[in-house]
Amino acid sequence: MILVDGRAAVVVSARDRGLNYGDGLFEAIRLHAGRLPLLDRHLLRLAAGCRRLGLSWPGEEVLRDDMAALLEQGSGEGVLRLLLTRGDGGRGYAPPADARTRRIASLHELPPPAGEALSLGVCTTRLGDSPALAGLKHLGRLEQVLGAAEAAAAGWDEGLMLDARDRVVEGTRHNVFVVRGGRVYTPPVDRCGVAGVMRSLILEVLAPAGLGGGEAPLRYHELDEIDEMFLCNAVAGMRRVKAIEGRSVHSGAVTDRVQALLAEAGVAWLA
Amino acid sequence: MILVDGRAAVVVSARDRGLNYGDGLFEAIRLHAGRLPLLDRHLLRLAAGCRRLGLSWPGEEVLRDDMAALLEQGSGEGVLRLLLTRGDGGRGYAPPADARTRRIASLHELPPPAGEALSLGVCTTRLGDSPALAGLKHLGRLEQVLGAAEAAAAGWDEGLMLDARDRVVEGTRHNVFVVRGGRVYTPPVDRCGVAGVMRSLILEVLAPAGLGGGEAPLRYHELDEIDEMFLCNAVAGMRRVKAIEGRSVHSGAVTDRVQALLAEAGVAWLA
Repeated sequence: MILVDGRAAVVVSARDRGLNYGDGLFEAIRLHAGRLPLLDRHLLRLAAGCRRLGLSWPGEEVLRDDMAALLEQGSGEGVLRLLLTRGDGGRGYAPPADARTRRIASLHELPPPAGEALSLGVCTTRLGDSPALAGLKHLGRLEQVLGAAEAAAAGWDEGLMLDARDRVVEGTRHNVFVVRGGRVYTPPVDRCGVAGVMRSLILEVLAPAGLGGGEAPLRYHELDEIDEMFLCNAVAGMRRVKAIEGRSVHSGAVTDRVQALLAEAGVAWLA
Repeated sequence: MILVDGRAAVVVSARDRGLNYGDGLFEAIRLHAGRLPLLDRHLLRLAAGCRRLGLSWPGEEVLRDDMAALLEQGSGEGVLRLLLTRGDGGRGYAPPADARTRRIASLHELPPPAGEALSLGVCTTRLGDSPALAGLKHLGRLEQVLGAAEAAAAGWDEGLMLDARDRVVEGTRHNVFVVRGGRVYTPPVDRCGVAGVMRSLILEVLAPAGLGGGEAPLRYHELDEIDEMFLCNAVAGMRRVKAIEGRSVHSGAVTDRVQALLAEAGVAWLA
């Protein structure tokens, strides 16, 4: 089911700026046991993204109403996709003065379950550095599309994506965490990459547990030196990693500890 | 008028991958005196872009049929917009195995005429480096949207966009040429920027005329050292520049010469 500005629809205006210019943002929100445990965090991120792009905020209430209408159709588990665009807007990049944000909300089944731990490859497609857009879950996902096509062709569960300086930034659809010396680190997302909702929750639970290493660049060659690695996103939760480019990766005590901390924080749908 | 896969329509599937992931390409083609003088070049670029993205090519004939159907509605001057997306595609970045390229073709009026020469500013928004996407006119134009919003707010005719290393790459909707020592240069577009159709035509006519400097990086501080500057795109043709950030720019003999060369090459709609 799809709601466009609150009404059931299967189509969107061909003049939509999301379609024509990637002028918008989206969230993929986990539906678990009939609820949306991370909705507040998704709405906060979406509002922050709207401010960065100068997209008018449709209001939290109307977004919650969209979600509630979809949940009436929903089973216990799934994914709610919430997409905001700058509405219709002729030809020309400059946002129209009277732009009105369009809401496209849809309910989807969970992606098919992967195995207990993921086998990763490293994509040839590099993530570009774009400080103007870094961190945002904006609609221009072509680099991720190309990376995901590589992963599918190679039979990897997920592809790691590097930036132009050979630093691991994220997976095509997951953020990345590594464990070194008993501390947990994740690459910064201030030049490229998505500031994931699950990523920020994990960063929050790490610090009080004494595990926090925070954000740190992760060079490709340092993948040989890590003790453990896991991935995350808001739909799948936390994902263990069993191999990178055929080399085994240990999933050990620290990963177990992070999983327990997330469970305490109410994220109960971990793989 | 809009044609979606050859049929008159005002809407597109809400599941379109162009909308959801920016997964597609577009061309803005000048309609002049009832004809499309640069159509062959646009189709060549579009086909090359499809190969880079692994987007199935719908075939030249069907695209020419779309254009012809729009021209039946068209007056003598305008812009044809031709957008290709990877069709519908559920959730998930990886292209579906059975993806079918969707065509969205539309006819638009010319943008309102600007003055004889343009007054430029320099955008705060930087272009990101993305080797995977550089040169392509893909659907993710958010950096250009932000740059164009700056230009509109500041009252500039156009905004120049720099990369992270303070090099001028292009305008929000034009490529850039500068004249130094009697030769004409344009910034490379192998890390960011669009490989414009008019840009490539200008590069072609420069060389035999002995004016060709080719591609060369243009640092921001070098804007003080240029003799002349002009912009171009396939819709407007060539645009003279009268000022950058309030400093006058000379439009001189070499710009006149390039304009004459383009006229000889059949580009007769120059500003």
